[in-house]
Amino acid sequence: MKKLMNAVDDVLTDSLRGFGAAHADLVEVSLDPKLVWRKGGGRAGKVALISGGGSGHEPLHAGFVGMGMLDAACPGEVFTSPTPDQMVAAAEKVHADAGVLFIVKNYSGDVMNFEMAAEMIPDMLGAATATVLTNDDVAVESSLHSQGRRGVAGTVIVEKILGAAAERGDGLAELQALGDRVNDASGSMGVALTSCSVPAAGKPTFTLGEGEVEMGVGIHGEPGRAREALRGADALAADMVGAICEDLKPASGQEVLLLVNGMGGTPLMELYLMFDAAKRAAEAQGLSVARSLVGNWCTSLEMQGCSVTLTKLDGEMAALWDAPVHTAAMRRGA
Amino acid sequence: MKKLMNAVDDVLTDSLRGFGAAHADLVEVSLDPKLVWRKGGGRAGKVALISGGGSGHEPLHAGFVGMGMLDAACPGEVFTSPTPDQMVAAAEKVHADAGVLFIVKNYSGDVMNFEMAAEMIPDMLGAATATVLTNDDVAVESSLHSQGRRGVAGTVIVEKILGAAAERGDGLAELQALGDRVNDASGSMGVALTSCSVPAAGKPTFTLGEGEVEMGVGIHGEPGRAREALRGADALAADMVGAICEDLKPASGQEVLLLVNGMGGTPLMELYLMFDAAKRAAEAQGLSVARSLVGNWCTSLEMQGCSVTLTKLDGEMAALWDAPVHTAAMRRGA
Repeated sequence: MKKLMNAVDDVLTDSLRGFGAAHADLVEVSLDPKLVWRKGGGRAGKVALISGGGSGHEPLHAGFVGMGMLDAACPGEVFTSPTPDQMVAAAEKVHADAGVLFIVKNYSGDVMNFEMAAEMIPDMLGAATATVLTNDDVAVESSLHSQGRRGVAGTVIVEKILGAAAERGDGLAELQALGDRVNDASGSMGVALTSCSVPAAGKPTFTLGEGEVEMGVGIHGEPGRAREALRGADALAADMVGAICEDLKPASGQEVLLLVNGMGGTPLMELYLMFDAAKRAAEAQGLSVARSLVGNWCTSLEMQGCSVTLTKLDGEMAALWDAPVHTAAMRRGA
Repeated sequence: MKKLMNAVDDVLTDSLRGFGAAHADLVEVSLDPKLVWRKGGGRAGKVALISGGGSGHEPLHAGFVGMGMLDAACPGEVFTSPTPDQMVAAAEKVHADAGVLFIVKNYSGDVMNFEMAAEMIPDMLGAATATVLTNDDVAVESSLHSQGRRGVAGTVIVEKILGAAAERGDGLAELQALGDRVNDASGSMGVALTSCSVPAAGKPTFTLGEGEVEMGVGIHGEPGRAREALRGADALAADMVGAICEDLKPASGQEVLLLVNGMGGTPLMELYLMFDAAKRAAEAQGLSVARSLVGNWCTSLEMQGCSVTLTKLDGEMAALWDAPVHTAAMRRGA
């Protein structure tokens, strides 16, 4: 394992310190407990949106803290859930008078810890809480780290759309319902060409032969549907889009957002090539690609590979997707 | 070699098609000759800024086409110069009445081809031309592909600052002088943990042992200063910043822009960690980090590693750096 790091135990602290220094105009960072929150904190009348999870998926979630997206992010150690005290501390930094919404990827540790925090916050801070669970990964029904489907790159879309809705003043129950709606309208499927290595483990999480891919891989390197033969981008994209459409069952002519997400170690040139392949595959399924996003948004350390996400858009979701956002990783308008 | 691609010969075409589809609001793309240009073309009174070079360094240069940065980019095959006919066609798309400025990384093939185009364009299009050569890489004095120093990630800074100056109406000679000034104020140094694989070659460009790095590596995997022992991020950053400062000889208290640039296969978490290390190294050299940029900006396919760039800022350069920009890869304000 070769990484740009100092001591293994300091990877997250050192990286967060760098993130805070690079984006001091947008965020504040605490190293104990580990938190990233929007500079200036909460705003009266606005629900506070808080997400978090294990690190190693950057820019998710800290890169999405700022106007139009998250109010705070709680980073755990690499591929390890953050703790309830981080979530309570985050809520304390950013909640105002309209409650706290957690956006949580469906992994057992995250679900348990965010549930505990959601129970503590009303008593401790006098704020109402609600939670949106994301489980957009259509690859497997349950997994090493999850009961039920995993939350993956579709979480970025949920965070963007809910962030815009929170800015316009939607209440806690409305945001929860909208988040569930976006999640239900989203499906994702990943493919790995190589494994990642968790710093504390010091070696690759899994191994693949030169001619193999892991189809349906999880964002922690969990097994997917099958170990398959490496094939052309068009064939991979058609299989991924096909699997998502089997799940989402979109109507012919449905407008979709197409996200091609890099796993961290894949060149941008290949991601645009996969976008081309996935767009043609979606069109062959009768879909209309109305919005797009290409890049490294929900990563798995240095894993090579990508995921494809489709979200069935309605007019409200498209308008919220287009709304201004100003974060370290995503910026648009305003 | 494992890549997300169809036929090796179609990698660039397929990727450009995807890029054009994903960013149809910003750019237009031609596949023959291969060009990316700003939607709507040139504007009266504005110098047209055109860059280009071998592909595999994305988002450089196509990702920087748009308001506040480039007017057009000419992508060559992977790590191969584009041809003069691409540059002439790009100029035809975007030149108006104020001339054409080429921004060229100092590699022999690029220099020769852009020189030929610069000689053809006055006759063919009636437009004046000028060129800014970037050669910010302090690692080696000449290299496999260059006479003199190589142009690397500092090119991003030159393109951003010149793009802002062109928007405000600077003339061709002023832009050329400003570009030379930014290039002279910039120094970069890279380090590789792994090699990249060029699609047409089908195998890694070089090999490194588990405990080795290539210090001063070029963005095509060219050799750097030395094969050295892998060490902590703080030690790597101190050596890289030290080498740049030996070249730039900044005054104590000098304000700098610090860019930590990923080579394509390095997790963002590690890049922020390196930013933290490089910032402390720069401060130990008496510098004041006044602006920052962290991410994959000038890559080498899937190479793992990073480069550090320092640019000595003056007030004009800082203001132009802060000016609005709206491209696929960089967006700020407006």
